[in-house]
Amino acid sequence: MTDRYASFVQSGAGRTLVKRLGLPDPPRLRRHRPGDPLLPGPALLGAATGGRLAEPVGRILAFAGVEVRDPLTVDADTRFGALVYDATGVTDSTGLRQLYDFLHPHARSVLPSGRVIVLGTPPAECGSPREATAQRALEGLTRSIGKEFGRGVTAQLVYVTKETGNASDGPDLSAGTLTSLDSTLRFLLSGRSAYVSGQVVRVGAGHAQAPADWDRPLDGQVALVTGAARGIGAALARVLARDGAQVVALDVPAAGDALAAVANEIGGSAVQLDLTTPEAPARLAEHLASRHGRVDVVVHNAGITRDKTLGRMDADRWDSVIDVNLSSQERINDVLLERKLIPAGGRIVAVSSIAGIAGNRGQTNYATSKAGVIGLVDSLAPVLRERQISVNAVAPGFIETRMTARIPLMVREAGRRMNSMSQGGLPVDVAETIGWLAWPASGAVSGNVVRVCGQSLLGA
Amino acid sequence: MTDRYASFVQSGAGRTLVKRLGLPDPPRLRRHRPGDPLLPGPALLGAATGGRLAEPVGRILAFAGVEVRDPLTVDADTRFGALVYDATGVTDSTGLRQLYDFLHPHARSVLPSGRVIVLGTPPAECGSPREATAQRALEGLTRSIGKEFGRGVTAQLVYVTKETGNASDGPDLSAGTLTSLDSTLRFLLSGRSAYVSGQVVRVGAGHAQAPADWDRPLDGQVALVTGAARGIGAALARVLARDGAQVVALDVPAAGDALAAVANEIGGSAVQLDLTTPEAPARLAEHLASRHGRVDVVVHNAGITRDKTLGRMDADRWDSVIDVNLSSQERINDVLLERKLIPAGGRIVAVSSIAGIAGNRGQTNYATSKAGVIGLVDSLAPVLRERQISVNAVAPGFIETRMTARIPLMVREAGRRMNSMSQGGLPVDVAETIGWLAWPASGAVSGNVVRVCGQSLLGA
Repeated sequence: MTDRYASFVQSGAGRTLVKRLGLPDPPRLRRHRPGDPLLPGPALLGAATGGRLAEPVGRILAFAGVEVRDPLTVDADTRFGALVYDATGVTDSTGLRQLYDFLHPHARSVLPSGRVIVLGTPPAECGSPREATAQRALEGLTRSIGKEFGRGVTAQLVYVTKETGNASDGPDLSAGTLTSLDSTLRFLLSGRSAYVSGQVVRVGAGHAQAPADWDRPLDGQVALVTGAARGIGAALARVLARDGAQVVALDVPAAGDALAAVANEIGGSAVQLDLTTPEAPARLAEHLASRHGRVDVVVHNAGITRDKTLGRMDADRWDSVIDVNLSSQERINDVLLERKLIPAGGRIVAVSSIAGIAGNRGQTNYATSKAGVIGLVDSLAPVLRERQISVNAVAPGFIETRMTARIPLMVREAGRRMNSMSQGGLPVDVAETIGWLAWPASGAVSGNVVRVCGQSLLGA
Repeated sequence: MTDRYASFVQSGAGRTLVKRLGLPDPPRLRRHRPGDPLLPGPALLGAATGGRLAEPVGRILAFAGVEVRDPLTVDADTRFGALVYDATGVTDSTGLRQLYDFLHPHARSVLPSGRVIVLGTPPAECGSPREATAQRALEGLTRSIGKEFGRGVTAQLVYVTKETGNASDGPDLSAGTLTSLDSTLRFLLSGRSAYVSGQVVRVGAGHAQAPADWDRPLDGQVALVTGAARGIGAALARVLARDGAQVVALDVPAAGDALAAVANEIGGSAVQLDLTTPEAPARLAEHLASRHGRVDVVVHNAGITRDKTLGRMDADRWDSVIDVNLSSQERINDVLLERKLIPAGGRIVAVSSIAGIAGNRGQTNYATSKAGVIGLVDSLAPVLRERQISVNAVAPGFIETRMTARIPLMVREAGRRMNSMSQGGLPVDVAETIGWLAWPASGAVSGNVVRVCGQSLLGA
């Protein structure tokens, strides 16, 4: 479960050797600790002519305690915690030059684990094919930056809907943008997003509720976590509890002891239940109704693998993986939604996988189930929008868990290093990403599938 | 430009050595020659209960000379050229089991360079979240099969709109489906799609015109190819001419001799023009108008690379790459469309790149331009639908050209082998894919970005 090579490289003797031999050089990633500032240095904030987001973003950053600098007045040798650019003013491909002009002089001035964030307009909302083309082009830029900058620097593209919040429309609407974009900017700038890079995040027009304390963004929320006894689920239970949630930790009876230990550690409750049984959804609903009267956050994390090539796979391997990883999620959602146990402001977060995006040898069953999870997000998000419930997924890449520790050494090393961070992620990285999607402040983020993969080379 | 390792492996002595040492084993791919049958063996055709496509697909296959077998009556030791499955009847995740039941017994009976094609309904058109989820799950299955089956077998998912052609709606509508799906099935089954795998193709409701002779699918069409002097462009000019088109081969004046040689070889005409000059679009339009009165097929293939990391990239590298690869395409499209030189039934095909999908180190300019090409397709396709003009892109992966021959050996070898075919593609593979999109028979295929990458691991 530990990456000994990375520990070695990050030691003094290791550093020297790695540099001399030109070996992979996994940086120590900046990870969130409560009370940390959002960034390790100032943010440089620029905008293309006519952009609609620079002003509200400047206010969000300043309110979050970030020191904001202007490209026109900045010192040539300043080093930055983040480069943030409002590209919503780019209306055709020649206008993309403005991003070059902003980024080129400062490309080598980003601090380790710094951030590059480009804000754009969703191409489908653009007024002309030329504008849509230029806005879509931004994705090639940010993904390349993620691969190029190294040293734990991440790069993201955030498409912000035009529907609410145009700074020029007056104070109320711009306040709307502030609220809807705030949680996403804070997540992407902070150490919470240590292992998230090369992503496209879409911020829509949903209702977002800012917390009283951004170090307790889940205060008072009731959160269900399935598969909570170990690995990503246990890390998730801890993160949600740290951020203020009352956690209902669920796992199969066979994992009862580990589950109880997690629940006790975080002051949550434990539920032993096999979710694949026909009566499970109703029993779970009754438990949540009687103990809490509701569940604000539902995280479908429970999942299994039963790998075999398709020709050698028995039917039970197919059925059990599809049922645990996909069908049981659908049954539970249906019962919780029918019984109105997920209130307005509710959040559903499902765990997909990069195997569900890219496919994988020996995992026809697993990849089918995890691609289905993406379909679940895509299809439920619009349906639940009017009930103010968001639905999103995370897609982990190589995460250091008991599951990946069993992979043969050479395959494991390839999986670990073939990403922009040259290392595997930790369960906490997935947990922090799910946490962000679960916040009451993230109501404008729905229908997203966010990879937590260090920008793994594995794609589609 | 040649993959000596693959040639060695495909020789008798090489085969033995590779098997003994467990080295990568690139198969010899089946490629199209005029007059070839579509498949090297019979097709097994199955369908989920209630599927709407099995019947028209069966007729398409039979009409195309494919021997179609039924899973209920087939011999256990039959080997297949293709497994084709109509999954449109799958309405929830438990129904996915039907795909397992169809594929499992025959997974090891697919001939080398055989085909697996799954047909589904676009998730956005599905009647319920459950159905949309299951239809989306198919993508994880086909991508995994592409990675798993090996030996040059490809796997694709084809989403077919419900808008036209439901077999149960009577002969006229089902004939509609036949026509719209025919070109895509023929391409995917044939050796033309040798290096296309793990793709999702969307077949819509556009008007499709079947050719008199499927070995001359471009008969009588006027086709413009930019960057035609060498590499992919030259291969493309040859393929389009072989398939019946009158080819207008265009390149910069500096490549005049090579361009003339290509044009002479195929009986086409040569145009020397630098597309980045302000007067180029009008001059091109005038040339096409005076010589041909129209242009049925426009292929934007001309492209350049000027690699540098962003901090070291001078402005000219940025500007020239964006201009050649993206802005000049936009200017040409606009002039040709304004002057109505592209008639109903016209085709625009642009060359993107997997770098435009995944980003690439040292290619912020190139990846931005190629992501923009995807934006161009996405945004123009709906606008041009009413004029019956389709717009699509191909995204090549590692293709054996002069450009890739200059990549350092170890990086080149990694690029070549990190895909489901364990080899680079040939320029003709990209050309055949563009050819399919250019056919009058492919009018229902618009807004697609099809990778020609052997299912490269590089993704997003």
